[in-house]
Amino acid sequence: MSTVTVVGSIAFDAVETESGKRDRLLGGSATHFSLASSFFADTRVVGPVGEDFGEAEFAVLHGRGVNTDDIEIVAGGKTFFWAGRYERDVNVRHTLQTDLNVFESFAPKLSPESAGADVLFLANIVPALQIAVREQCEKARFVALDSMNLWIDVARDDLVRAIGMVDCVILNDRELRQLTDEPNLVRAARAVLGLGPRVVVAKQGEYGAAMFTADEVFALPAYPTPDVVDPTGAGDTFAGGFVGFVAAHGDEDLRSALAYGTALASFNVEAFGTERLQTLTGEEVAERVSALERITRLDAAPVQLRA
Amino acid sequence: MSTVTVVGSIAFDAVETESGKRDRLLGGSATHFSLASSFFADTRVVGPVGEDFGEAEFAVLHGRGVNTDDIEIVAGGKTFFWAGRYERDVNVRHTLQTDLNVFESFAPKLSPESAGADVLFLANIVPALQIAVREQCEKARFVALDSMNLWIDVARDDLVRAIGMVDCVILNDRELRQLTDEPNLVRAARAVLGLGPRVVVAKQGEYGAAMFTADEVFALPAYPTPDVVDPTGAGDTFAGGFVGFVAAHGDEDLRSALAYGTALASFNVEAFGTERLQTLTGEEVAERVSALERITRLDAAPVQLRA
Repeated sequence: MSTVTVVGSIAFDAVETESGKRDRLLGGSATHFSLASSFFADTRVVGPVGEDFGEAEFAVLHGRGVNTDDIEIVAGGKTFFWAGRYERDVNVRHTLQTDLNVFESFAPKLSPESAGADVLFLANIVPALQIAVREQCEKARFVALDSMNLWIDVARDDLVRAIGMVDCVILNDRELRQLTDEPNLVRAARAVLGLGPRVVVAKQGEYGAAMFTADEVFALPAYPTPDVVDPTGAGDTFAGGFVGFVAAHGDEDLRSALAYGTALASFNVEAFGTERLQTLTGEEVAERVSALERITRLDAAPVQLRA
Repeated sequence: MSTVTVVGSIAFDAVETESGKRDRLLGGSATHFSLASSFFADTRVVGPVGEDFGEAEFAVLHGRGVNTDDIEIVAGGKTFFWAGRYERDVNVRHTLQTDLNVFESFAPKLSPESAGADVLFLANIVPALQIAVREQCEKARFVALDSMNLWIDVARDDLVRAIGMVDCVILNDRELRQLTDEPNLVRAARAVLGLGPRVVVAKQGEYGAAMFTADEVFALPAYPTPDVVDPTGAGDTFAGGFVGFVAAHGDEDLRSALAYGTALASFNVEAFGTERLQTLTGEEVAERVSALERITRLDAAPVQLRA
């Protein structure tokens, strides 16, 4: 059985949307990733929390069988806190507060078990740490990486080096364009492939995702949900489904991996924080993947065209 | 054989992009639409031009067999002129100049042949005129309509009435959201279906298009082209492919219609103005539709998911 290790943030989120307001939700990239990944493979979380992180939060992760042995409880520390507000158009987000707290001095310590995972996800943390973690995981046969505009701005060289050490990059399409200074997505993705990875996944939010390899492009729309409550963590949930699928079933069928990631992300946005993933069943995931197949099925009629 | 009538603008465009600059391109919604539609069905253009519109311009339309009998040459008038500049990111467009000229006092005069078409496309003109044209075309079995943010702002009631008189609405997703004051696309599309039409197509630019009917959603990414020279007219070319397909093959297979529209639009952006459509062959269109099938093909593996 394959194991996935994810290194990233574990957080408390305060979120305000049209649908309501929550003061303290379990959040963070590693949290959202691991809940999704747990549908496919044993998943281990590496990240720091403060003393305010308690039984209730661990219970959410354990409820989906996530291994939390490498969650480091920092004595006297407080957990990473993020507060944000989404407009009625949930594509518009305002960050109200970011307290890094224990995340500020995070130095990932991987147990032999976490370092020995055959699949690794480097969630959005400072690129130098991504490199350090990558170097600790010598046995990993598939490594994927996320990042953000901040690191493109302030740590570009490290990020490019980190990208050169992974198999797969999963970024927002805007970030791919920014990283490569190339507004055309196809050209941007090709430029990132040129940095080393063999797979580039462009997350496109409500529009879905596109995947680029040396000889293939695959594009999948998002599941058209009328019920978006809280988009926080959708990208990490997507990555968890994608990478978890690869851990369980190899990297031969990356289209399916992308479909499962898309399905999981579409559930994540239907409730606040981790609420929807906590009650989600495998059957529901399978049904939504089938729905994605129906929604995207194209068997175009070959017709006579006029010269 | 089905006939398509399109009522809309015929224009000269001055366009500036990263790829170069053109001072006087044949353009306009009816022009782009008809060149695409001509791959499927006899197409008749209804619209006004000035005395500056000459043999060269007619030749482009005739070159694809488009019927121009109802192009009205206004004595002493000048053709609609639009000038725009696209940034390096071609999704950002700046309008530099708009001279309505003969288009300002356009009152569509349809010959019996144009009024008798069984398929009608009401390109983006003032909604009151769309209504007047719709009323003249009593035999039309499929009528589609485009519009723009301006009419949503200044002629909303007329536009809603026009929408109630057509079978199909083809709008940018932004316009669908604006029209319905509903930021969620699924809800916006449903609201427009509630106004009368049985098909709503959301154009999403580089992300593709989505189609909504009472019991179905279909989403198709755009063809991922690395070579965007001039996006002007892509939406009308898309509509021309979509509506032209329906004229030739009925409205049973709207997914194929959308795929052909998408393919044609992807060619349109590869050169300035109508240049690419003028040399395009049916074989090339068929190949690109096949490429779209390959790019979007999803046969997701049914896998064991962990409870």
